[in-house]
Amino acid sequence: MAKIKKQPRPKAQTPKGFQDYFGADVTARAEMLNTIAGVYHRYGFDALETSAVETVEALGKFLPDVDRPNEGVFAWEEDNDWLALRYDLTAPLARVAAQYRNDLPSPYRRYAMGPVWRNEKPGPGRFRQFYQCDADTVGASSVAADAEICAMLSDTLEAVGIDRGDYVIRVNNRKVLDGVFEAAGLLESEYLADNVERVGVAIRAVDKIDRLGADGVRAMLGEGRKDDSGAFVEGANLAPWQVDHILNFATAKGLDSAETFARLRELVKGSQLGEEGVVELETIAALLDAQGYGPDRIIIDPSVVRGLGYYTGPVYEAELTFEVTDEKGRPRNFGSVAGGGRYDDLVKRFTGQEVPATGVSIGVDRLLAALRAKGGMDQTAVGPVVVTVMDRDRMSDYQTMVAELRNAGIRAEVYLGNPKNFGNQLKYADKRHSPVAIIAGSDEFDKGIVQIKDLILGAEIAKNATLEEWKDRPSQYEVPRDQMLAKVREILDTQS
Amino acid sequence: MAKIKKQPRPKAQTPKGFQDYFGADVTARAEMLNTIAGVYHRYGFDALETSAVETVEALGKFLPDVDRPNEGVFAWEEDNDWLALRYDLTAPLARVAAQYRNDLPSPYRRYAMGPVWRNEKPGPGRFRQFYQCDADTVGASSVAADAEICAMLSDTLEAVGIDRGDYVIRVNNRKVLDGVFEAAGLLESEYLADNVERVGVAIRAVDKIDRLGADGVRAMLGEGRKDDSGAFVEGANLAPWQVDHILNFATAKGLDSAETFARLRELVKGSQLGEEGVVELETIAALLDAQGYGPDRIIIDPSVVRGLGYYTGPVYEAELTFEVTDEKGRPRNFGSVAGGGRYDDLVKRFTGQEVPATGVSIGVDRLLAALRAKGGMDQTAVGPVVVTVMDRDRMSDYQTMVAELRNAGIRAEVYLGNPKNFGNQLKYADKRHSPVAIIAGSDEFDKGIVQIKDLILGAEIAKNATLEEWKDRPSQYEVPRDQMLAKVREILDTQS
Repeated sequence: MAKIKKQPRPKAQTPKGFQDYFGADVTARAEMLNTIAGVYHRYGFDALETSAVETVEALGKFLPDVDRPNEGVFAWEEDNDWLALRYDLTAPLARVAAQYRNDLPSPYRRYAMGPVWRNEKPGPGRFRQFYQCDADTVGASSVAADAEICAMLSDTLEAVGIDRGDYVIRVNNRKVLDGVFEAAGLLESEYLADNVERVGVAIRAVDKIDRLGADGVRAMLGEGRKDDSGAFVEGANLAPWQVDHILNFATAKGLDSAETFARLRELVKGSQLGEEGVVELETIAALLDAQGYGPDRIIIDPSVVRGLGYYTGPVYEAELTFEVTDEKGRPRNFGSVAGGGRYDDLVKRFTGQEVPATGVSIGVDRLLAALRAKGGMDQTAVGPVVVTVMDRDRMSDYQTMVAELRNAGIRAEVYLGNPKNFGNQLKYADKRHSPVAIIAGSDEFDKGIVQIKDLILGAEIAKNATLEEWKDRPSQYEVPRDQMLAKVREILDTQS
Repeated sequence: MAKIKKQPRPKAQTPKGFQDYFGADVTARAEMLNTIAGVYHRYGFDALETSAVETVEALGKFLPDVDRPNEGVFAWEEDNDWLALRYDLTAPLARVAAQYRNDLPSPYRRYAMGPVWRNEKPGPGRFRQFYQCDADTVGASSVAADAEICAMLSDTLEAVGIDRGDYVIRVNNRKVLDGVFEAAGLLESEYLADNVERVGVAIRAVDKIDRLGADGVRAMLGEGRKDDSGAFVEGANLAPWQVDHILNFATAKGLDSAETFARLRELVKGSQLGEEGVVELETIAALLDAQGYGPDRIIIDPSVVRGLGYYTGPVYEAELTFEVTDEKGRPRNFGSVAGGGRYDDLVKRFTGQEVPATGVSIGVDRLLAALRAKGGMDQTAVGPVVVTVMDRDRMSDYQTMVAELRNAGIRAEVYLGNPKNFGNQLKYADKRHSPVAIIAGSDEFDKGIVQIKDLILGAEIAKNATLEEWKDRPSQYEVPRDQMLAKVREILDTQS
């Protein structure tokens, strides 16, 4: 048996940017994933689970977010290969779609869920490991596939407990965006070569229309503006007609859809890509409309950009519209909890063949946080019934009691700490949020009875009652041993 | 938008030693984890999910298996810290128990499940990422905690579908093992210093009693033996009386328990630790016996060693006893699927305080493989009902059909590939194991009907029937559109 060398004590510390999840946080997430998987499955998607580790080569150069080019992956060298933790579930899907292309059905509809890892600076509420739950259709060029994913996203949000009206799914098309920029003369190659950064500033300005408003976006497209801290942020310095053109686009939402499409057609005039994009958007809108997914659930919104560079067609985003209170007590919109789009080039990296694909990713941890913030989620789970230990030698009798409760489907356990201090046993039951404690010492065993304590009622009485009430409302019952199960059940029923 | 530089195409390849899981393999595992968590929860254990990444400092020097000291972890340097993927769920628990010791209830009963990673040479059926599902009680010195875990393990195996009689849980105690070696004069420090390796050989020989038999173990304790390949393996070269002493111990199972304990008491005589160990084993046996967990489920077996160096008391192991056929068609025992024990020193690393702990780890992937090998598990999941596309312009009608089916809880999808070749659509349905295909072109829409194809029956007829039977047993039905749902349901009911 290996001896361990003496060394300074290690620190018991979660690595920076990572988190531990306890009890109800874990089970709530598991339940949510299960619900989402249920919807995905009913829509005909099949499960896929790739390993957490991929070769860096397969992950490729696609950083998760072009807005923050410094962020990266956790990677290490192994047997002359660079390996890394996956940063999303899309890159592994592209790898799988290429690797098994001769065996998979086409279209390949898959869902996947699990943690992903980002090597970015941790911040409040931003962790280096978090859960995603994705569904993608690979090998379908029809925008019916995009429309379906938007409908499914709507169904999914409602299935996990977000009420209709508390969310909106916003749909746009990268081709329209590109078409508008093309029509504004910003994508001609000689221009773009010298102005990549300015075009980037302009795109991000469009993305921020909700936060900055029309004037803010106008400033960003033009000379620039002062941000919240008072610092001046350089704008895209576009010509006035270009500013107007793009601003007309960014504000083309909230209209009725005929008006929106009319305006978009105007704005992409002369761009083949843009015109194609508008037709696709109209098709999506018509399909969703026919299925009853109206603007109370899904809207066409030209301002949606989505950060990822690899999108090539429709993009979509689910936003929660209710207000929550942040850490500092200020009301704010919860914002985006899911997003996705079409990325026709991702599989091509491997095979050289173009494979159309579209899909959505739900940020499960954010969605959980939203439900919690809204109060739509029980935060403390009910603990087990605790059978206390009055007499060490009776351990097998206590075990028989819990076995009886468990066999009846009731969560139960014997106190397994040091039983000497009985107060500690009740403190333990309290810390576990136990609903009931069972007490039996030699007296009780002699008489063939048990004491059953209603801990929820007990706590309530202790908090609210006067001394007289306390005496009148006992929260402890003495019952014959063979009525223990019935009495526990009765108490649990009353509590719930 | 970022441009991607031209570079040689990446290989679409799962990293060496890792695996992708598809469809039913994923959902079967999820169901099993869910079932196991249900049992653990009912026993009063609370969920804990730590991140996949730990500091190497926190993981410590505990390699997962002292028998293979070359194996290790996947580790990398990050901000001057070494981080690593967890290799089991026990090391993170020890870290958590130390880190949150002031907030956690004591005893702390937790369960955890998820992948773990081992940087070992991959081999057939041995992967670098696999699932574990653990339950541990931290802060309970009573062996009632060990007995409880053994009982729970038995309940768990039966809950996931292993029949009683198809498994056995074998229990031993490290203290007894140490006591026997002490009584054989092998643990005196002067002796041990020079003979660590020989003692190691002897311990592993005891572990192999089932495979080598008494003669094989005798040879390993003595001069050595030829292994299967004919190569000579050096033995522990113990004195003949020592060989007898230890062999008496290794063979002390299968007796009735009174005999086993009598023999063990004899063999540890003079070793305080050993005598303590025997008493603990007797207590465990008595507790389990009182709860009805007899030798058909749990037995005392002195030959159980368990590889891990950190066990300090009771150890236990669940073995499947039915025969399966290996890749080469040979029958073999499936072997161990779960194991655990008491490790009183693991938390002490961090805090300096001794914290008694005991727990079990179930090898979920092995257990799944066992159930599959035994045929107790459906291997192909039923695919979705596929609504085929005869007329591209009717896409929203097709979507309405699938929506109707889904709302009735039936898994369904529209074919989203290129609809031009109808044969491809039926091939797709076949590849998805679809039970039913719906067909509707302009003819059908004009008449207000749909065609419904029973694909399971169709495949059966195609395989077995003569041409006459084929004509007589139609597997395709024409029904009014408003009876589509009822007919699909009827077909699904007949199929299942």
